[in-house]
Amino acid sequence: MTHPKRTSIPTVGIVGAGQLARMTYQAAIPLGIPIRVLAERPDDAAALVAADVTIGSPTSQTALSTFAAGCDVLTFDHELVDAATLAALEATGHIVRPGAATVALAQDKRRQRAAFAAHGLPVPAHRPASSVEEIARFADDHGWPLVAKASRGGYDGRGVWIVDGPSSAADLLERARAAGIDLLIEEQVPIDRELAVLVARRPNGDIVVYPPVETVQRDGICHELLTPAPIAPPLARAAERLARQVADAAGAVGVMALELFLAGDKLLINEIAARPHNSGHHTIEACATSQFEQHLRAVLDWPLGSPDLVTPAAATRNLLGPTDGSDPADRLPAALALPGVHVHLYAKQPRSGRKLGHVTVLDTSLDSARARANHAAALLGVDIDLERPA
Amino acid sequence: MTHPKRTSIPTVGIVGAGQLARMTYQAAIPLGIPIRVLAERPDDAAALVAADVTIGSPTSQTALSTFAAGCDVLTFDHELVDAATLAALEATGHIVRPGAATVALAQDKRRQRAAFAAHGLPVPAHRPASSVEEIARFADDHGWPLVAKASRGGYDGRGVWIVDGPSSAADLLERARAAGIDLLIEEQVPIDRELAVLVARRPNGDIVVYPPVETVQRDGICHELLTPAPIAPPLARAAERLARQVADAAGAVGVMALELFLAGDKLLINEIAARPHNSGHHTIEACATSQFEQHLRAVLDWPLGSPDLVTPAAATRNLLGPTDGSDPADRLPAALALPGVHVHLYAKQPRSGRKLGHVTVLDTSLDSARARANHAAALLGVDIDLERPA
Repeated sequence: MTHPKRTSIPTVGIVGAGQLARMTYQAAIPLGIPIRVLAERPDDAAALVAADVTIGSPTSQTALSTFAAGCDVLTFDHELVDAATLAALEATGHIVRPGAATVALAQDKRRQRAAFAAHGLPVPAHRPASSVEEIARFADDHGWPLVAKASRGGYDGRGVWIVDGPSSAADLLERARAAGIDLLIEEQVPIDRELAVLVARRPNGDIVVYPPVETVQRDGICHELLTPAPIAPPLARAAERLARQVADAAGAVGVMALELFLAGDKLLINEIAARPHNSGHHTIEACATSQFEQHLRAVLDWPLGSPDLVTPAAATRNLLGPTDGSDPADRLPAALALPGVHVHLYAKQPRSGRKLGHVTVLDTSLDSARARANHAAALLGVDIDLERPA
Repeated sequence: MTHPKRTSIPTVGIVGAGQLARMTYQAAIPLGIPIRVLAERPDDAAALVAADVTIGSPTSQTALSTFAAGCDVLTFDHELVDAATLAALEATGHIVRPGAATVALAQDKRRQRAAFAAHGLPVPAHRPASSVEEIARFADDHGWPLVAKASRGGYDGRGVWIVDGPSSAADLLERARAAGIDLLIEEQVPIDRELAVLVARRPNGDIVVYPPVETVQRDGICHELLTPAPIAPPLARAAERLARQVADAAGAVGVMALELFLAGDKLLINEIAARPHNSGHHTIEACATSQFEQHLRAVLDWPLGSPDLVTPAAATRNLLGPTDGSDPADRLPAALALPGVHVHLYAKQPRSGRKLGHVTVLDTSLDSARARANHAAALLGVDIDLERPA
């Protein structure tokens, strides 16, 4: 249902209706912020809960323009939009946050590497690669194996390949060419940990930085968030400074997540997301202001909230669809019997490996928070492996 | 929009679409609980945010039956329903929580007094009154002035009168008769404080009790909640025991609020509400489990969450519509500039004295929490009076 508007609070339109839009919707309710959602399907996670849903493709120029016309501020649940269309909307006076230039950067790993390197920010050694010769020359400097990435469209481990020599490089190039994929080639960084730093930035450049988290990945998919990241305080401060510099360089507005590699005591930029992000789900309970409320404040150009932790430690476990196809929702009451467990379900059709929800536990130590979050996930039927990957 | 159901989680239907339904809706999102709302008007507070809204009168038997047919569990945002209709729904196999008998009790102050007195629970001296003679005889025992209350339908100070002698009793009786109101007459209790204790009770009798709060009232309207109530611990434990007894006596299922008078060191039952209640709004941030999540758990017969405080102190200030008719939403960004202020707006049309939202602040002391909550309310344009009434 669409209602005649009677509040002075601007209407925020969210392009995309996944779990990020769903949790942003939840955060908008207490602030009385009117939300419109552009969903691909009526059963998208956010479309199931929002009152004002438009069905349309985020890549259709017509759908996007029509949707934008009914919103005061346009923002995003994902990066799968056409940056040129966004630029055209901006040119005709629409408020798009983050802006088209930031979205274009977030969509393209090649462009990110080039832009951040140009700002003198630490990135892995890299180059665009379209021939075996280029890759072999790069390997002369950096050694095999190398890492190849699709410049656009990869996520959750998709679009990343290990290249261990000229023949696997030739193979990959041929497949990439057939699929129309531009490749970026990088040194293989000896990663000790992966970290993420969330920031929120207003149009005027005001910025707040959340304490860094460790993202525990398996096969390129984030399984756990550990907060605060178990790293030395000077390293945490350095990661925060870096996130601030990256957000300024990217011209980010709203929440931006910076994903980092930690190799020894060296921080290297992996990539950014210019929106609320999986690495910030703990902020709902663990921080004074959740990333979702913060994103709304930032895109509305309102004062930002405190990003401070309100707990000594927090562990968040992603609920990936069990291999047996079962639905964690079927076992929800069992998990709710554990005290202090915050379960978030996204109401998505269960499928093995799909992100169906997450669980957050606050505690006095990371170890106990982690054990309790994993216990809850196990009760929800999720396949868990308590060992941190090597 | 109504969607084909694909989760095993039961659908909860909420009769009434005010701010309580709105906040319950918010609490249902992370748990993936499908919610349907029966709203009188499309611009009711919960109807503005819910995806699945039916427009209909909660007092229409047809509207209620049709709505109930699409829900697995029926619950309530208010008591303005016909208990006989609920009993008929129960008789035909519908799950109604709280049940018809509890709703009937919560609707009727005379019935409450009689039921709780019969259980030996402490209530003010009282009697039904339909003649000046009855009232005068009661005054012989308890002295003037007396308090008269409409047995049904009163709230926020409406339906309560001070009767200072036989002639004002005669006046009131005549007006009550004309309006079809049944009167209850009570001793005037020398109230030192008003307290509220929230409980949540499952169908099997499992119960959790929240720490008592002080409700600071002016003209019968709650202006502030102070948590924990500034009373001696033995008195707090006694209030908790009493709430448990009252909930058992009422057969409550879901959240129940017990409002209490404190006179010296004596606790007296004022009244109950058999649903989430204004006196529990602090639980959203101040307790491990909010009253809204707790209500959903209880009516679904799921394990109850911890009611424990997660902060040394919390103050909640109701945002009553300013006398100048202005809308607190217009000044929201100013209030959000204060750190640690949790603003909740209900998106209701502003009107002087109407409950338009609330603000909660957690702090290390009640005094500082209260000062900050009042500061935020003042920035939102609300008329505040920092003195506690005599």
